[in-house]
Amino acid sequence: MAWDQVERYLAEHGPAFVEQLKDLIRIPSVSAQPAHDKDTRRAAEFIRDDLRAMGLEAVLIETARHPIVFAEWTGAPGKPTLLVYGHYDVQPAEPLEPWLSPPFEPTERNGNLYARGATDDKGQMFTHLKAAEAWLKTTGGLPVNVKFMIEGEEEVGGASLENYMAESADRLACDYAVISDTSQFAPGMPAVTYGLKGLAYFELTVTGADRDLHSGTFGGAVANPLNALAQMLASLKGPDGRIQIAGFYDTVKPLEPWEREEFARLPFSERGFQDELKVPALFGEEGYTTLERKGARPTCDVHGLWGGYSGPGPKTVLPCVAGAKFSFRLVPDQEPAEIERLARAHIARVTPPGVRCELTTHHGAPAVLVNVDTPGMKAAARAVEHGFGARPVFIREGGSIPVVGLIKERLGVDTLLLGWGQNDDNLHGPNEKFSLADFHRGVKAAARLLLELSN
Amino acid sequence: MAWDQVERYLAEHGPAFVEQLKDLIRIPSVSAQPAHDKDTRRAAEFIRDDLRAMGLEAVLIETARHPIVFAEWTGAPGKPTLLVYGHYDVQPAEPLEPWLSPPFEPTERNGNLYARGATDDKGQMFTHLKAAEAWLKTTGGLPVNVKFMIEGEEEVGGASLENYMAESADRLACDYAVISDTSQFAPGMPAVTYGLKGLAYFELTVTGADRDLHSGTFGGAVANPLNALAQMLASLKGPDGRIQIAGFYDTVKPLEPWEREEFARLPFSERGFQDELKVPALFGEEGYTTLERKGARPTCDVHGLWGGYSGPGPKTVLPCVAGAKFSFRLVPDQEPAEIERLARAHIARVTPPGVRCELTTHHGAPAVLVNVDTPGMKAAARAVEHGFGARPVFIREGGSIPVVGLIKERLGVDTLLLGWGQNDDNLHGPNEKFSLADFHRGVKAAARLLLELSN
Repeated sequence: MAWDQVERYLAEHGPAFVEQLKDLIRIPSVSAQPAHDKDTRRAAEFIRDDLRAMGLEAVLIETARHPIVFAEWTGAPGKPTLLVYGHYDVQPAEPLEPWLSPPFEPTERNGNLYARGATDDKGQMFTHLKAAEAWLKTTGGLPVNVKFMIEGEEEVGGASLENYMAESADRLACDYAVISDTSQFAPGMPAVTYGLKGLAYFELTVTGADRDLHSGTFGGAVANPLNALAQMLASLKGPDGRIQIAGFYDTVKPLEPWEREEFARLPFSERGFQDELKVPALFGEEGYTTLERKGARPTCDVHGLWGGYSGPGPKTVLPCVAGAKFSFRLVPDQEPAEIERLARAHIARVTPPGVRCELTTHHGAPAVLVNVDTPGMKAAARAVEHGFGARPVFIREGGSIPVVGLIKERLGVDTLLLGWGQNDDNLHGPNEKFSLADFHRGVKAAARLLLELSN
Repeated sequence: MAWDQVERYLAEHGPAFVEQLKDLIRIPSVSAQPAHDKDTRRAAEFIRDDLRAMGLEAVLIETARHPIVFAEWTGAPGKPTLLVYGHYDVQPAEPLEPWLSPPFEPTERNGNLYARGATDDKGQMFTHLKAAEAWLKTTGGLPVNVKFMIEGEEEVGGASLENYMAESADRLACDYAVISDTSQFAPGMPAVTYGLKGLAYFELTVTGADRDLHSGTFGGAVANPLNALAQMLASLKGPDGRIQIAGFYDTVKPLEPWEREEFARLPFSERGFQDELKVPALFGEEGYTTLERKGARPTCDVHGLWGGYSGPGPKTVLPCVAGAKFSFRLVPDQEPAEIERLARAHIARVTPPGVRCELTTHHGAPAVLVNVDTPGMKAAARAVEHGFGARPVFIREGGSIPVVGLIKERLGVDTLLLGWGQNDDNLHGPNEKFSLADFHRGVKAAARLLLELSN
């Protein structure tokens, strides 16, 4: 009865939800770029105001960087409490050239909404706001108690949320957390994610002489930081796809036989995957399938490289500095601090003579595995099936959501990872998108989750 | 008698020469950057007008890209003819941050003139113009016949000069060429350069998927073009400083015992060189001294690297494209075309699975060795001693001046390589400079050369 009203509200207000989401996306809340600090704050205010408009007490928690939006509704004593986590900050939009429409002007094409943040995480996070709104506007309350904690430093691994959670465990007390910041397994095949990778992210700077030199006059006589950087980065991974840092795999939990069977059961075409990405071949660690590599094996990727001259034509310079950003995705039981120690030892060992190195740590987070046999996970599976019309599969994912580990540690609860995205959503890349049909299904699943958790 | 007049003219007009040179340097004639095409042409016009002002017939030879300035004075029948080669184009000024004064606003500090092109090659080339002016203005003629050929594509390895020389061998006929585009051995130790390295310059592009990907969702399952690029560049050179391309050293002429003795006799401190560059250690090919590595051994340097995200903060992107510029300096008898063939075979061999590669050739030139026992070289040595007050040493240099090979091939004559620069002039780097004392000495040596060649 109440659910029918909620469903009707969702159907009637779907188009308005999309327009509101577009307004949120138009705010370029790029947390990594100080030039966008005001925009990032505006996005927080937008969410606070949206929560207030549905009748919740919502506040901005000030931090050293970007504020946290907090709101709560505790009118269901005796019922469970759900903590909704999301983030309103987005990745940088650069490089800009490949975008078919401006990154901060959400554009509908082929049933998708294209924009930075469309899926990661504005679009997905927004489904939980609209789900609460539907209950509040139609029934005046929610089936369970709900707290919202929406942060602005997820994409930069900022410390503000961690500090806030350390201070505010009582205020945040809950029975479950829910995060929608992952993907379905495939179109029409929704998923509940029970495993996430961890992350250890570094920046390496290599310097040689105190100035750029002429490669004719000085070439061959001094080390070239660009050659040295290439050599050092190449040393991280072998041609067999294995990371070559001593001790790196020591704490990796081997895949259980049942997990390998589960991976093998998932419908997946290596050839289709290759064709969709338009790569000449797949490449990864020997001895594992693509799904195992993506979901359950540690990886190493260089994210950025710079140094010397990259303009048109030749320039025979021997540059004095080069840099790179790179990271490792971690799996249970690798510890980011231990991986950092091993990485530092490796870099020190492979630094060639004639250059100096500096290694900066950007952020780290351990991997996560969630127990699939809890009432919350079962309620989540029912809610997803209700919203998407198909039973979800249980999967492990390659992405990292550090807050899941924090929630476990600080609040002692598991997180329901309900992702409404698709694998080809280009989150973090140009032409990020979110299916509008999945957005509406996600709102419905999120609304249903509140009901399922109350039973 | 006539020489006294010339010397007096040089002394009186020295300050005016510097002001004229500054005007030339203020024109940002960066041949590599199409945005500067008009400036590049303006520099050619400036030189044409300066040659006209001293009474020569000077013209611009139009080409597909940047014009060549040509002028001649043939009023000394029976006397030798000297071809003065120089270039009015300059390297890009980027990176701009390290410049202490704007690259195209020549600034005097500590007796030096700081600006892009101060030494390479505007300042050095200009000495020959002012030398001719001094003779023409005081005696109404020159001791020998002189032709000027000043081009605008030296820094981009353009084909225009080669085409022009192929068509105009008669017009360019001469007994010697002279180029001032190299360095002295050290302050107070002028040099005549008898050997130059060749060059083979490449650009490598590595592509993976058809779009940037999320490193969590896709990491470990597809090759990362940045990791692949690092691996490929690292494969070019071993930890012993040797280039690891099969066949690369096959045609390298070993250093003769007398050459190694000559190198060892030159006053040079490895420690002082290291300290001056502020590098933690020198690095180069095992088994050779720094001077041998710089002057007489082939080298490999990466000039630029790019790909992915280089902005502030972390970004967990798996980029779809990465690139690098790199080159080899060649020694006799390495042929650029053969080196290109070997480099292409090497790149094909080391391209890892999962990426595509494209290798572009920017330009190539063979190395040069000039006979030191000719009347022209002896006249040059006397002229340098006259201008600088010290006997020059004979050296081999790491730089490449492709036109020296062309002059030998097309016109059948040797080039006198008389460099007025210093090794720390930062040509091609930020804060390029030219000693004003060396500029004036260079003008005097250039004027004296005309007299010495006439005897």
